Amino acid sequence: MDPDLPGPNRLSGKMLTPLLNEFRHNYLLWLVVLVPVVLIAQAIEPEAHTILFVLSVVAIVPLAALLSLATESVAARTGDTVGGLLNATLGNLTELIIALAALRAGQYTLVKATIAGAIVTNSLFMLGISFLVGGLAHHVQEYNRNSARLQGGLLFLATIAILIPSIVSEADVLATGDKFTNSLSVGLSVLLGVTYALGLLFSLRTHREFFSGPTHTDVDDAQWPLALPLATLAVVTVLVALVSEVFVESVQQAATALGISPAFVGFIIVALVGGAAEMVSALSAARKDRLDLSVGIALGSASQIALFVAPVLVLLSYVIGPAPMSLQFWPGAVAMMLFSAMTASLVTNTGRSAWFVGLLVVNVYVIFAMTLYLLPPRVQ
Amino acid sequence: MDPDLPGPNRLSGKMLTPLLNEFRHNYLLWLVVLVPVVLIAQAIEPEAHTILFVLSVVAIVPLAALLSLATESVAARTGDTVGGLLNATLGNLTELIIALAALRAGQYTLVKATIAGAIVTNSLFMLGISFLVGGLAHHVQEYNRNSARLQGGLLFLATIAILIPSIVSEADVLATGDKFTNSLSVGLSVLLGVTYALGLLFSLRTHREFFSGPTHTDVDDAQWPLALPLATLAVVTVLVALVSEVFVESVQQAATALGISPAFVGFIIVALVGGAAEMVSALSAARKDRLDLSVGIALGSASQIALFVAPVLVLLSYVIGPAPMSLQFWPGAVAMMLFSAMTASLVTNTGRSAWFVGLLVVNVYVIFAMTLYLLPPRVQ
Amino acid sequence: MDPDLPGPNRLSGKMLTPLLNEFRHNYLLWLVVLVPVVLIAQAIEPEAHTILFVLSVVAIVPLAALLSLATESVAARTGDTVGGLLNATLGNLTELIIALAALRAGQYTLVKATIAGAIVTNSLFMLGISFLVGGLAHHVQEYNRNSARLQGGLLFLATIAILIPSIVSEADVLATGDKFTNSLSVGLSVLLGVTYALGLLFSLRTHREFFSGPTHTDVDDAQWPLALPLATLAVVTVLVALVSEVFVESVQQAATALGISPAFVGFIIVALVGGAAEMVSALSAARKDRLDLSVGIALGSASQIALFVAPVLVLLSYVIGPAPMSLQFWPGAVAMMLFSAMTASLVTNTGRSAWFVGLLVVNVYVIFAMTLYLLPPRVQ
Repeated sequence: MDPDLPGPNRLSGKMLTPLLNEFRHNYLLWLVVLVPVVLIAQAIEPEAHTILFVLSVVAIVPLAALLSLATESVAARTGDTVGGLLNATLGNLTELIIALAALRAGQYTLVKATIAGAIVTNSLFMLGISFLVGGLAHHVQEYNRNSARLQGGLLFLATIAILIPSIVSEADVLATGDKFTNSLSVGLSVLLGVTYALGLLFSLRTHREFFSGPTHTDVDDAQWPLALPLATLAVVTVLVALVSEVFVESVQQAATALGISPAFVGFIIVALVGGAAEMVSALSAARKDRLDLSVGIALGSASQIALFVAPVLVLLSYVIGPAPMSLQFWPGAVAMMLFSAMTASLVTNTGRSAWFVGLLVVNVYVIFAMTLYLLPPRVQ
Repeated sequence: MDPDLPGPNRLSGKMLTPLLNEFRHNYLLWLVVLVPVVLIAQAIEPEAHTILFVLSVVAIVPLAALLSLATESVAARTGDTVGGLLNATLGNLTELIIALAALRAGQYTLVKATIAGAIVTNSLFMLGISFLVGGLAHHVQEYNRNSARLQGGLLFLATIAILIPSIVSEADVLATGDKFTNSLSVGLSVLLGVTYALGLLFSLRTHREFFSGPTHTDVDDAQWPLALPLATLAVVTVLVALVSEVFVESVQQAATALGISPAFVGFIIVALVGGAAEMVSALSAARKDRLDLSVGIALGSASQIALFVAPVLVLLSYVIGPAPMSLQFWPGAVAMMLFSAMTASLVTNTGRSAWFVGLLVVNVYVIFAMTLYLLPPRVQ
Repeated sequence: MDPDLPGPNRLSGKMLTPLLNEFRHNYLLWLVVLVPVVLIAQAIEPEAHTILFVLSVVAIVPLAALLSLATESVAARTGDTVGGLLNATLGNLTELIIALAALRAGQYTLVKATIAGAIVTNSLFMLGISFLVGGLAHHVQEYNRNSARLQGGLLFLATIAILIPSIVSEADVLATGDKFTNSLSVGLSVLLGVTYALGLLFSLRTHREFFSGPTHTDVDDAQWPLALPLATLAVVTVLVALVSEVFVESVQQAATALGISPAFVGFIIVALVGGAAEMVSALSAARKDRLDLSVGIALGSASQIALFVAPVLVLLSYVIGPAPMSLQFWPGAVAMMLFSAMTASLVTNTGRSAWFVGLLVVNVYVIFAMTLYLLPPRVQ
């Protein structure tokens, strides 16, 4: 992070060294210079939607990477259980902040596209590309399938929670937004959140021996002094929030101007941007034949969005949103979530992978992306 | 059973000893005193629907338990194959009698809710609660997954038989009740029944070595003289039939008075009541780390309802019902059956279980129950 | 083949010996005498639709068998990789030629019924009957499940490609045939075709050690001189094309006259006829306890139709059809394809089989066939 920025000035220059090292190794982080550019551009030209949209999308990438670095660094210093807990709650902070900005603006369609898109992108694209890249480097890769099973089961539960109410009520529950849908959404959100918490208890405490992959030894993030990642977390969270506001305000008109369907923007672009940092970690682990880590990041992230971020947003809509937000999605999003959960379950069933398995999973994602890209704007 | 009741009087007092012993150990059976109360109340106050509903629901529980005891006792005396056959045909006698009462009254919606509810409750709630209770007592439990696979496959077949006609005909086959739906329902019922019979041949005869769990040694029911369980079966069947009449007549108006949706009553309450006795057996086996038995009871019961009870009811509707009943269910019921079959197949795939697996399965059931409970009455 | 026919006359009599030997052993081939009968009947009585339909259906059976023999014979002479490639591209030549005849006539409903029917028939009926027949001869059979997994994964991908566009666009994409559906169909066809090609690269080259079953030693087709199978391929392809024309022209009116729904004809009859030869091979392998081969033929054939034949037909519709054909199917066909892929994946999960497994799979097919048979003609 640029030492001229106000936040980390309270830290001594020496403490910043590990962060500066990261900047030296990882050129992606340099994109952080776009953050002030976006904010200034927004102040000067609030109507230049297309430029603001592109700038804000690109500026979120390095911020997401910094959030991941900081979270991992804190996690590495706190022992397995607390560290796992931290990763499991702050791992999708970027997506949460973007969705919160959209929630406050009452753009519930964008919120839901962001949620569904993040689930689908993580469980298909991130998983598939890890298998593919890992499989091109190694003939056959093995990994611990217990973790994949657990996350797959959680994803399934969330999909059922989202799917069943609309089928059972035989009504377009999205449109109505009536008492039934809202009470049910609150009940289901609590159920999913509690299940997520108990799932952490299960995998981090009571049955952790089933989920431990090879230990994570080559982390030099652990050398960061604790104040640095905490300060980074705080500052970057504020910056992501500011940039997300710009993004949310510009996305609708920019999509129209660029001729991209809004569904494609919410589902694919936001999800890829928000998950860019995790994707880099997952791919690097796959290349080093540490698929346990890749699968854990991909499916863990997907189930965290489904069982933690989505319920939190539903409950927060009562506090900060203009109206209650339900847990109901449009049928296309539900179908894509269902097939993502099924695909992830099927391919992780054996605990073995090769390049073609990755290609199959990526292609399911490409089918979704292609459909959303070509979707005429009237339908969404 | 109370010795003052007329039926078992033909048996000598000494022969009744094992039955009385059961009453001494199992306080649930004492609820049987409610049976005469229900019948008398119905004669005196036929319009007190809510009270009659509650009383009849509670009175069915001890009767279901007695039916189970008697069936198991006969089965234990007849050798594995005939015993398995008996259990496989009389195991859901309570549900069958309740459904027959509703069938004679022409309440086909209640019949179908009872069928679908029993399938879902057995394959999710009974299975999940067994895993959960067993998992809280034992760190990890193993069981024979061949049996779970077989029952899961049968459940899948039944779900496809119920699902495909409505999708293929692209019509609301429930509403029409035309020639197509009726001929097809008869054909599918015969197909399912024959498959069920051949499945028994497969698991009890040609390939039984794949399905045998640890042998069932602590059964003291075997000491019953044969006349006792046979007489119990006969008398209790008549009593269940009488109480079911009261239940079927009162359920609709009681549900309205209590503000519960009729779908919730049929799906959840009747299924839990009818399966209470089996649930007690499944839980007790799970606690003793005999999950083979629990899984067998839960999924075996579900597939028996789907492939034996449901087809028998469709065929009997031509004899005792006011009109032919089809094998078509409302889309919500079909979706719940499909997800039950999928969930049961997924979680029994490994032959291993821990508490969180049970929680996940129970939570799928809770999602269904919550949705049905909150469902506005107009939709059903 | 009858030596009086013009085609093979260019070959010396001695070279024909292996072909004549086939005729001596395989009485099915004698039905080839119906080929000239069909063509003459069509010239004399072009309006005798029912007779022409029955004759053309029966005449295709021996031609399909000859095509299979010739393809296998060429494949056996060319080494594993090229041979596998040949089988993988010409294995469903009969279905392709029938579908091309329907495509040129603009009968897109028949083309799609043929495609969907071939997928369903191969992945359910051919697989199930192999398990059943093999299981009646052998107590338990084992096979290489890697191949089944791969083909199952490919089938799943194709089903998702066909299913997602209609759900996401929330429109009756079959009816509209608009720009969205057509561009998407072309994109998806290219995606599926490329995936199919890469799947061959994976299974025949980079990871072939995972897919090799026991080697195929009892093939005496290998003794054919190369000119014979090539000539047979050429001549029989022309004959199938001619007979298919008769079939396509007569099917609609014949179905009406016979009181069979057109959906049943396209889905069941054409698929059984076109696949008769492969079915004979699959059954014979199952009886010899070579289930690897049976599963490979059944699922390989299904995935070839889905990822190679169907995309080729979509792309060819721009060249030889009256209008672009989309990759969208009616919901009933999509549901049947989805459940076929799920059933095939579930039952091949263990790599073991017994007779009842086969019965279950066949019964899923019987449910489909029964539904289509009873379907009133107005719905299709």
